[in-house]
Amino acid sequence: MQNFKFIDGSVTSPLGFTANGVCAGVKPSNTTKRDLAMIYCEKPCNAAAVFTKNLVKSSTILVSKKHLENGVAQAVIVNSGNANACNADGIEIAEKMCEIAAETLGVNADDVIVASTGVIGQPLPIEPIIKGAAALKGNLTKDGGTNAAEAIMTTDTVKKEWAVQMTLGGKTVTVGGIAKGSGMIHINMGTTLSFVTTDAAISSEMLSEALHEAVEVSYNMVSVDGDMSTNDTLAIMASGLAGNEMITEKNEDYKTFVEGITAAFKEVAKKLARDGEGATKLLVCKVNGAKTYGDAVVISKSVICSSLVKAAMFGADANCGRILCAVGYSGAEVDTDKIDVAYKSSKGEILVCKSGLGLAFDEDKAKEILLESEIEILITLGDGDGCAEAYGCDLTYDYVKINGDYRT
Amino acid sequence: MQNFKFIDGSVTSPLGFTANGVCAGVKPSNTTKRDLAMIYCEKPCNAAAVFTKNLVKSSTILVSKKHLENGVAQAVIVNSGNANACNADGIEIAEKMCEIAAETLGVNADDVIVASTGVIGQPLPIEPIIKGAAALKGNLTKDGGTNAAEAIMTTDTVKKEWAVQMTLGGKTVTVGGIAKGSGMIHINMGTTLSFVTTDAAISSEMLSEALHEAVEVSYNMVSVDGDMSTNDTLAIMASGLAGNEMITEKNEDYKTFVEGITAAFKEVAKKLARDGEGATKLLVCKVNGAKTYGDAVVISKSVICSSLVKAAMFGADANCGRILCAVGYSGAEVDTDKIDVAYKSSKGEILVCKSGLGLAFDEDKAKEILLESEIEILITLGDGDGCAEAYGCDLTYDYVKINGDYRT
Repeated sequence: MQNFKFIDGSVTSPLGFTANGVCAGVKPSNTTKRDLAMIYCEKPCNAAAVFTKNLVKSSTILVSKKHLENGVAQAVIVNSGNANACNADGIEIAEKMCEIAAETLGVNADDVIVASTGVIGQPLPIEPIIKGAAALKGNLTKDGGTNAAEAIMTTDTVKKEWAVQMTLGGKTVTVGGIAKGSGMIHINMGTTLSFVTTDAAISSEMLSEALHEAVEVSYNMVSVDGDMSTNDTLAIMASGLAGNEMITEKNEDYKTFVEGITAAFKEVAKKLARDGEGATKLLVCKVNGAKTYGDAVVISKSVICSSLVKAAMFGADANCGRILCAVGYSGAEVDTDKIDVAYKSSKGEILVCKSGLGLAFDEDKAKEILLESEIEILITLGDGDGCAEAYGCDLTYDYVKINGDYRT
Repeated sequence: MQNFKFIDGSVTSPLGFTANGVCAGVKPSNTTKRDLAMIYCEKPCNAAAVFTKNLVKSSTILVSKKHLENGVAQAVIVNSGNANACNADGIEIAEKMCEIAAETLGVNADDVIVASTGVIGQPLPIEPIIKGAAALKGNLTKDGGTNAAEAIMTTDTVKKEWAVQMTLGGKTVTVGGIAKGSGMIHINMGTTLSFVTTDAAISSEMLSEALHEAVEVSYNMVSVDGDMSTNDTLAIMASGLAGNEMITEKNEDYKTFVEGITAAFKEVAKKLARDGEGATKLLVCKVNGAKTYGDAVVISKSVICSSLVKAAMFGADANCGRILCAVGYSGAEVDTDKIDVAYKSSKGEILVCKSGLGLAFDEDKAKEILLESEIEILITLGDGDGCAEAYGCDLTYDYVKINGDYRT
């Protein structure tokens, strides 16, 4: 039985949090789109974050890391339209953004988390941030989470927001979040930006542990294009206003909390994949019977990242060779004579490979299954009991179009 | 000074070799295309080969490996249109193909190398092979190399054939070859199929050593789509008819031989990349100043494999962020404050990133440079003297089109 439930909501659903997003003019080509958001808590929060593993990092990451050293945060400032990465004055601008947020919200600059997303290697002017902050001042509200979700979008076509509730020691605890995709998304914090809030009482150490546990099977299992961003940031703030007993160790409440955020993060991972640049389909690759969990992970990732598999799914082509090929080069130990492959969607399931050999199958049925917008690629091995699932999307003309001329 | 020269020629240029290719009807959709080739030498040759590292392998690879155990071969039979991989009767069919070639050419079946390329997981009928062999019987000629090059094409748009001459101990030695791309091409024998002949006298051990040395910096540095094929085969046969002193150790003649085939293999790698599925541009990523050779290799591969870099090159977009991003996640140790990035083509060179920071540059000039069909991405690091180059192509609408519906 699951100990949580999804509710309609956003980053402002937990007690204590308000937010909003405005059009500040960072995005030059279209000045009607929101591109600056702030998230605020009425009290300082325990906080934790996970960042990109890319050696080339946005300056915002260096500043946010420093600000999170004491495990406390009270606000987030984030812009889209410019990544503030590989700029000479990047650190200075990121710190300035924190000062602007601090002044706007009446908090310490050291308690502000800063993030940016957009084009790399172009200076981020501070004027739009100042202008946007003026518009946000006094306007952070309980229903402003949706505007914040909109303001962090780049090539996303839909905004991503969610909320989950659970009961910890008799108290109702809410967790909410916003996230953005949708390109430069790859395994190992394939998220670009996600901000999560909760009113749970939980120490920053336990928050960090919980984040890492949940990320492992969600954000770390999604790929859109194999490119790991320079700006990936997933930050969480806990206000403690739910009044539950403070979680300071891995007890039952901790487990329930992890279970709830893991389920939510998996949904976000699917949303990121489904809204991947140019995507028309969500692909979920489920591997069972691998020698170890690690083998299942690398196999599912290998299949979900294969350009040829992704293009075949776009074309609703039940090609089994490309799946077998991607299993074969994954690096996992596999008995190639024991690989079964099936495709599944709301229209049914079809086996296309049995014991490593291609099957003759009903092409019309396969086509019907693969024309759906959510496809499961089921791989069953006979090597052990390792299982894992990875999330991705198809490779389409629009991916090429979007990325063939992104800056202009 | 280089000790070799490229000449017009093919797999039949070295003394002793003949070949041809015919339309046997393996490719069902278009019966006018050649799809079966044979290469023959008038005497048994020392021979060696490199195969895919994919765990899922074409049955032809298992049979060819067995036939090459004694280091001797006299003929090649190869079909396109079907990969003979993941089929229940794969081994049987591959062996049958060798027998058919043996009978047609009057050689031992054990001395035949067999290869297939095309769709994976669909049975390969033997009837077209029998029919094609009948058409080839008595028709292998010195000018048939071109037809053989044509017969191994799948989605290739141009046939790949070449020849190189060098002088070993006063004797003129010729090496010739044919190759095919053009999808499922990735680092670590990213070649699908290549057949090389030479009239040099060289032991099969030295042939194998030479192959591995040359492959390292050529076939192993090319990627079209990141998918490593199940069928990659690069085989070489040496007739010895040039009359040079037999190469049995790594002497000066060996070095000259390696130098010649390395130069030829690099040209083939570029041809494979340039003719990658849907490609409009050849990309060459040159890395200098890396900490080690290994770091230079992984950085150049990471950049050449990035979907975002490939799409940007299709759009002639001088995006430096995506290059820096791919350097950053390559896994190599890099001082990110010392990365310079420039683009170069026949229209000139432009620096877009200096010391890890994006530069303001002349967008018109950059566009002019990137609209050319051969682009060099120059990455200069300040970490040591490791250098390497990798070959790839742009990601285009046509790649998606070709692979969205390959089987039908």
